[in-house]
Amino acid sequence: MTVTSLPDSVAVVNVGLPMFADAVRAQGRPVEQVDWRIPADGDPVAVRALTSLYGVHAATVDAANAEVLRRLDEGVPRLVGTATVADVPGFEGRTLLHCGPPIAYAQACDPLQRSMRAATVAEGWADDVTAADDLLHRGAVALSPANHHDTVVPMASAVGPSQPVLVVDDAEGGTRAFSPLNQGPGEVAWFGRDTDAAIERLRFLASTAGPALTAILDAAGPLDVLAIAAQGITMGDDLHMRTQAATNLLTRTWLPHVAALPDALRVPFAGYLGGNHLFFLNLAMAAAKSLQLHAGQVEGSSIVTTMSRNGTTFGIKLSGTDEWRTCPAPPVGEALYYSGNGPETSARDIGDSAVLELTGMGGPAAGGSAAVAAFLGGSMADAAAATAAFRTICAGTSSRFTLPPMEFAGTPLGVDVRRVVETGVTPKITTGILHASAGTGQVGAGVATAPLACFTDALLDLAARLDR
Amino acid sequence: MTVTSLPDSVAVVNVGLPMFADAVRAQGRPVEQVDWRIPADGDPVAVRALTSLYGVHAATVDAANAEVLRRLDEGVPRLVGTATVADVPGFEGRTLLHCGPPIAYAQACDPLQRSMRAATVAEGWADDVTAADDLLHRGAVALSPANHHDTVVPMASAVGPSQPVLVVDDAEGGTRAFSPLNQGPGEVAWFGRDTDAAIERLRFLASTAGPALTAILDAAGPLDVLAIAAQGITMGDDLHMRTQAATNLLTRTWLPHVAALPDALRVPFAGYLGGNHLFFLNLAMAAAKSLQLHAGQVEGSSIVTTMSRNGTTFGIKLSGTDEWRTCPAPPVGEALYYSGNGPETSARDIGDSAVLELTGMGGPAAGGSAAVAAFLGGSMADAAAATAAFRTICAGTSSRFTLPPMEFAGTPLGVDVRRVVETGVTPKITTGILHASAGTGQVGAGVATAPLACFTDALLDLAARLDR
Repeated sequence: MTVTSLPDSVAVVNVGLPMFADAVRAQGRPVEQVDWRIPADGDPVAVRALTSLYGVHAATVDAANAEVLRRLDEGVPRLVGTATVADVPGFEGRTLLHCGPPIAYAQACDPLQRSMRAATVAEGWADDVTAADDLLHRGAVALSPANHHDTVVPMASAVGPSQPVLVVDDAEGGTRAFSPLNQGPGEVAWFGRDTDAAIERLRFLASTAGPALTAILDAAGPLDVLAIAAQGITMGDDLHMRTQAATNLLTRTWLPHVAALPDALRVPFAGYLGGNHLFFLNLAMAAAKSLQLHAGQVEGSSIVTTMSRNGTTFGIKLSGTDEWRTCPAPPVGEALYYSGNGPETSARDIGDSAVLELTGMGGPAAGGSAAVAAFLGGSMADAAAATAAFRTICAGTSSRFTLPPMEFAGTPLGVDVRRVVETGVTPKITTGILHASAGTGQVGAGVATAPLACFTDALLDLAARLDR
Repeated sequence: MTVTSLPDSVAVVNVGLPMFADAVRAQGRPVEQVDWRIPADGDPVAVRALTSLYGVHAATVDAANAEVLRRLDEGVPRLVGTATVADVPGFEGRTLLHCGPPIAYAQACDPLQRSMRAATVAEGWADDVTAADDLLHRGAVALSPANHHDTVVPMASAVGPSQPVLVVDDAEGGTRAFSPLNQGPGEVAWFGRDTDAAIERLRFLASTAGPALTAILDAAGPLDVLAIAAQGITMGDDLHMRTQAATNLLTRTWLPHVAALPDALRVPFAGYLGGNHLFFLNLAMAAAKSLQLHAGQVEGSSIVTTMSRNGTTFGIKLSGTDEWRTCPAPPVGEALYYSGNGPETSARDIGDSAVLELTGMGGPAAGGSAAVAAFLGGSMADAAAATAAFRTICAGTSSRFTLPPMEFAGTPLGVDVRRVVETGVTPKITTGILHASAGTGQVGAGVATAPLACFTDALLDLAARLDR
């Protein structure tokens, strides 16, 4: 080849690092910049897995994902009644169900240990928290992840057999999920407190709130949980950090039945419900779990159907597999703290509530929530950016949950591990923050960014399973 | 002057009709179009009044308006208790208080006549609606505008002395306003029905809901009405067409006190409150009225402090004057109708609820309300345009009511008659629609555009008063 002359006019399309485009632009030449990053940060093992999951296995994965999305979007979870933890599948003996992946008492973070002690006393297995600590250290009280019993528990919850649970059915899926009653604000075990008041609250839920709710549901009949959740989202709930609107809609719906409760239950239950704007949280979680239990039965999908944290480890499972992929729980960033608190004294991300982020609620619904916006920079544009981030890693869009400030856009639905690893964008979870050691309960709220490593693990496992 | 040549280059600023700008642009010349209309459509009398109100009287009017806005924005109306219509200022004898400016029974529209008949029977003054019709035609039951008694009543309300009223105080202003209890949905007199059920509902309010509310307020203490209203607006209420969020917040707040009501009141009141998402409407109206009563005492202001309709006439008053400026009530346009109904069978705009539009609620809050958007074209951008239209005619901005979908912009506050007449833009009121003649109650909801003529009248009167 003979080069006779240099070109006297160039037009450039630059892919990737913008500095090259800047250099061309500085010379007065037209340039189109394409925003592009090396997938999976160039990790050759991950890139190989992505290549097969977007290549030879794409049809398999896409078909599986479509079915997962259908199940998540079309299922209609109904609150059908109440039961106790003793009734959940596989529960036996002197056991506490706890948030997150499996963990031993000694490895549990301080708030979760306190919650376990409070539950041990509330169950009557120990006279005080010191005795409870001894039982738990000796393994005389067994521990089991709530998720292993189709149950989801928020924050640092640990619950024994006497605790009442909400029973939520997804009739289409034939799945049933459970969540205990929300313990409310203040001096409560799910916030990592083990005071007398926290123990008394657990006993109150068993003796009073559970029976009241049983009577209400007997009279009111089954409740379409996500119909109320969807209204709540149009009223500014994200349904994770804020469930005020949905709780109030529920309160309104149940009001005549609350009024008809027998004297011994009515006034205390009304005080509990009227003072607890997070009552709906546990109900939304159980509804989400019932859908995920159905979606999680699909083989070959790249969608995450379990995501949970115990304050020490963060774990996920893909649909079609029962194996946890874990890594250390992240801190909660982008946070607002109560006066006198800060990141240095805060526990790590904790609770099963991240099931919401897998189901179009929480972070995916941030763009509709002025309350969440306050934690993300203050503007609704910041909140919209959080929803947009989920859109880059989700396989679909909810037709149930729509966001008025985003012109009724559906919330992103179904976290696709391929997209997560490809982009390095992980789910951001709107959540409360507990004190790391002092047992003082909630100290703030913020946004936890899920750690990438367990998503990469899950991706490699999926590729290996499909290659077999 | 000698013209030696035509210019070979022109650049144009065109003010007013865009066709001139289009002509210049068509010739390839730069042009800036300034959107401008002849003030008051060129009406010389109105232009003269505007000239003086924006000229020699500007300082007087602006100072008065600033004080009106301060009173509207800073007053804190509290629900302090209940009373009956018999207790409101100036009430006497066998009288019904009705919506809107003064009107005789024969001139009242069909829904208001029916409401008056229902109230006459409910008060025990007649055995049935036929007898009531006779009493009302003969003037044996007197009629008085609710507004003349510091009372505001929504839609086609007519209420007699036995009806309970909410008592709302603006402590700073030393003003007290009243509104009856919302009658709820369905077969009810405020929707222009005079059936047995509608009459029975009025009796229920007097016998049961009123005493229940009295007991609740005795236990709960005073309520900061607009603190709840402001939360409701961030949750998608406009507080006129939709008060769901605010009603639910109130329900939650009062729940323990509802639960503590005596047996005879508790279950029926809970059924009434739980089934009435517009309960807060009357409370918001009374709060707005208490502020307007204070604001309305400022002399020389161009801000409208009374705006009301009786289905036949539409009337306003400026601050500092007690004289109605009226014109025929408009139809309700931009409407959605229940099946089988339409504009031809619908009554005209009716009710005292337009007090909300004067106080930063209703139309000014449309931009935050997905529910209102449905009536304005369906998109949040349409709803935002309704708020923007109010901004062009309002003298200020609420610091209390903010709209998340509009990045927390305050709602427009204080309708300035100068701006209304100057621009020809009148308030748009989000409201329900009643059947014009069949007594079938609500047939839809939509947006009524206030008629310009009464604003022009008020403007001329203000200019004349200031010229004196």
